[in-house]
Amino acid sequence: MNLIQGGICAAKGFSANGVHCGIRKNRTKKDLSLIFSEVPASCAAVYTTNLVKGAPLTVTKRHIADGTAQAVICNSGNANTCNANGVEIAEQMSSLLAEALGIRTDDVVVASTGVIGQPMEIGPIAAGIPALVQGLKLDGSADAAEGIMTTDTIKKEVAVEFTLGGKTCRIGGIAKGSGMIHPNMATMLVFITTDAAIMPQMLQKALSGDIANTFNMVSIDGDTSTNDMVTVLANGMAGNAVIDSEGEDFTAFMLALNTVTVQLCRLIASDGEGATKLLECKVTGASDVQTAKTVAKSVICSSLLKAAMFGADANWGRVLCAIGYSGAAVDVGKIDVAFRSAVGTIAVCKDGAGVDFSEEIAKTVLLEKEIEILIELNSGDASATAWGCDLTYDYVRINGDYRT
Amino acid sequence: MNLIQGGICAAKGFSANGVHCGIRKNRTKKDLSLIFSEVPASCAAVYTTNLVKGAPLTVTKRHIADGTAQAVICNSGNANTCNANGVEIAEQMSSLLAEALGIRTDDVVVASTGVIGQPMEIGPIAAGIPALVQGLKLDGSADAAEGIMTTDTIKKEVAVEFTLGGKTCRIGGIAKGSGMIHPNMATMLVFITTDAAIMPQMLQKALSGDIANTFNMVSIDGDTSTNDMVTVLANGMAGNAVIDSEGEDFTAFMLALNTVTVQLCRLIASDGEGATKLLECKVTGASDVQTAKTVAKSVICSSLLKAAMFGADANWGRVLCAIGYSGAAVDVGKIDVAFRSAVGTIAVCKDGAGVDFSEEIAKTVLLEKEIEILIELNSGDASATAWGCDLTYDYVRINGDYRT
Repeated sequence: MNLIQGGICAAKGFSANGVHCGIRKNRTKKDLSLIFSEVPASCAAVYTTNLVKGAPLTVTKRHIADGTAQAVICNSGNANTCNANGVEIAEQMSSLLAEALGIRTDDVVVASTGVIGQPMEIGPIAAGIPALVQGLKLDGSADAAEGIMTTDTIKKEVAVEFTLGGKTCRIGGIAKGSGMIHPNMATMLVFITTDAAIMPQMLQKALSGDIANTFNMVSIDGDTSTNDMVTVLANGMAGNAVIDSEGEDFTAFMLALNTVTVQLCRLIASDGEGATKLLECKVTGASDVQTAKTVAKSVICSSLLKAAMFGADANWGRVLCAIGYSGAAVDVGKIDVAFRSAVGTIAVCKDGAGVDFSEEIAKTVLLEKEIEILIELNSGDASATAWGCDLTYDYVRINGDYRT
Repeated sequence: MNLIQGGICAAKGFSANGVHCGIRKNRTKKDLSLIFSEVPASCAAVYTTNLVKGAPLTVTKRHIADGTAQAVICNSGNANTCNANGVEIAEQMSSLLAEALGIRTDDVVVASTGVIGQPMEIGPIAAGIPALVQGLKLDGSADAAEGIMTTDTIKKEVAVEFTLGGKTCRIGGIAKGSGMIHPNMATMLVFITTDAAIMPQMLQKALSGDIANTFNMVSIDGDTSTNDMVTVLANGMAGNAVIDSEGEDFTAFMLALNTVTVQLCRLIASDGEGATKLLECKVTGASDVQTAKTVAKSVICSSLLKAAMFGADANWGRVLCAIGYSGAAVDVGKIDVAFRSAVGTIAVCKDGAGVDFSEEIAKTVLLEKEIEILIELNSGDASATAWGCDLTYDYVRINGDYRT
């Protein structure tokens, strides 16, 4: 399996585009994106667990109930959530796009990201759709990735190439990160495309299984947004034998999907609002996977640890503390902790107690941009990884006065 | 019931003191505190739920297993946690104090707050105990409150006077706040004294019942420390009929205790690390108390909302979002939200959707130092309050480079 260029257009039959249609005032910022598959594709999706759900999620859920979709439309600048006409707007977005593309309205995935509770007008979107559709191109992934950005500072695109029964397949994805956007809406949107042939229910199984270990293990600030959504479109144009059950091909597909999603997780976490560092918490030696996950997430979510990482302070006490209150049943006396980065590894805690270590070396390790927090529980074989970022002055600045 | 002066020395028979013994390098900072009751007192305590527990908690638990204590000793500057000789040190602190006071070692409550995982020496404490005991005084509450401070910026003392069966009783307390101290240790320590006569098991019942609505509803940054402890000593010197069961006196005692603990919660929250504002989230109209609590805590813990409050930004979408992911079963379409402070109230959300409001007035309301976030769920009669503070640049500064 190789990482390749092309993002969501890497897979055969997918084109994309992104334009400025006027939802955002800044004309240099794209605010409307489109992904299109030449042929109807199997579609799977997962949605935020927040009880407050954006209207586009409701509409998308209905549209893809049959397991098929052919296009994705997504605007930034307004979350289309907690406003009276949300569902109506999302339906209009879908039907206007369907008409322009000559596809079924029910084959449109619709998404929005931006401020919550703001009235939304269909006007700019209706006006933007012709140019959006006309401009569809095979190298449009970057434009589409731009159109869904909000407080993101970098475009997020990934693609991989792999084989299924001798056929070359591709999976690509774009994401908008957990910069919290306007309020805390639309934290995360991920759109994935593949030319692999796979039945909708197997695609859903692959996605649901994957996100438990990937997007559900990312935390920027513990706030789960109302508009989170991950969708996959699989159009089958790679010509592989359709995956309709578990087996070798399904496993290979899962692995390729996981490669894409893990990279997107890392991109999302490292571009968290105000972040200066990517934190990767790797828990090993757990008695079971749930314990490993609980510990990893608790550590990655600790404001105290996040602030310490910002300060390149090897404050391992905060790691132990976060493990202790995680709710996981662990034997504190068996825990080892180390910090690792490109320059090296420094062990800071052994059997639940501090070890002598060089503060100077620790500082050098922690001054890097990507930090691994390694936790060995010495109680079994299960492991888990969680991704996050440091807590910085800029997080406070961005969120202290974003809306006004 | 009246608020009175005197803190932990307000109740009859209690004296206190605080000295600098040398655990902390800064000679102007007290680092060892003592509370003493003339006679053995009923004692109750609650401890952190963190699996990583400070050694003093283990020792205290053993000492007060019989429901009796007569003195409290607490140092700051070292949490005596995750170090090899923790229990030994805590025992030594207790026995040295007991000897100096002429009481039983088993009647000593011992506590520590400060850096985790640092070797601790008994030397400074042993050297400090004579002066600590000699200086015991009836107006020593402030000194004792000072001796347990770490990153706290204000001393925290409260006392109330009330009557039980015609007898004047007093309850007072001191606290060290949820400035996270050195790493994240000893977040919160609360020592309460009263001259009311009450059996240990009823005292424990009162305390355990109370903290569910008070200290367990305070969050500064979601990190639960390893050294949290709340203890109450009741020496009976007020001469009231001993409370040995539920009834009118127990209810009156609970009410007085609650007045003290709520004030301490407010002091702790408003003095959270880096805090510029006290946030009080009041949830009403919940179907049951657990729902109200879950919602209140989720909102008060939202980093996004906390940052918005710092910026005096009436970003009600973040309130709804935090309710939505709280896990509580609420009807989003029924939720009303308002912000209230000394200058007035501003309604921002009605039936789960935004209402037109003046951003200018909202700003004026939110620029105050104490902000109430009022959430009406319109689904029942249950209510709950949670306390917290805003998320500021100073929180990041304090915790980004505290240890080194």
